[in-house]
Amino acid sequence: MVAHMNEEALANTVTSGEAWFYSRSRKKLWKKGESSGHTQRIVEMRVDCDQDAIWLRVEQIGAGACHTGRASCFYRAVPLKQPDLRGLMLEFRDAEKVFDPAAVYGGKGDAKK
Amino acid sequence: MVAHMNEEALANTVTSGEAWFYSRSRKKLWKKGESSGHTQRIVEMRVDCDQDAIWLRVEQIGAGACHTGRASCFYRAVPLKQPDLRGLMLEFRDAEKVFDPAAVYGGKGDAKK
Repeated sequence: MVAHMNEEALANTVTSGEAWFYSRSRKKLWKKGESSGHTQRIVEMRVDCDQDAIWLRVEQIGAGACHTGRASCFYRAVPLKQPDLRGLMLEFRDAEKVFDPAAVYGGKGDAKK
Repeated sequence: MVAHMNEEALANTVTSGEAWFYSRSRKKLWKKGESSGHTQRIVEMRVDCDQDAIWLRVEQIGAGACHTGRASCFYRAVPLKQPDLRGLMLEFRDAEKVFDPAAVYGGKGDAKK
């Protein structure tokens, strides 16, 4: 998954060892898993050369990281070297549902956004 | 590494199978490795659930991906569960230089930006 951190999310992540993010659309700090219970315990946290990107290696607590019910948000592959981009169809890969989003999020809607 | 794509970079990446990006600071399309020769052949390309993030698994052609001379831009780790964030020191990890940026980029400056 990819998400944004603000200063508070970054501080919470470093001090707690669990993943916190900031929703730019909801303008709200959120702890990963606060609705689903599917939190992320950080195994390793790295920062990139110009220190504006963070890479987290995590132990996913609970079923999956994606709000669609998959283990990962990256469950579709893009076919390469296709001449016609308009006819391009994504291919599902590692796309098995590992939890039922309706049961987990209930009436709370998409808790990830 | 993390970088941005615009529509043209995305199209070039899908049709060629090599990584293209768009520099927001230089307002310029760039092919990864156009200065260094360190191109990226894409092994797998995935898109995330809401289709605004792309994950590339690549064969790095040439020495390394980072403009600092490392294999990866993520060569520093953030210590976790530290109470005092101000005293926090990053730890170098997988930080060996695999090429000499001065020799590779010469007078062309930081070709990654």
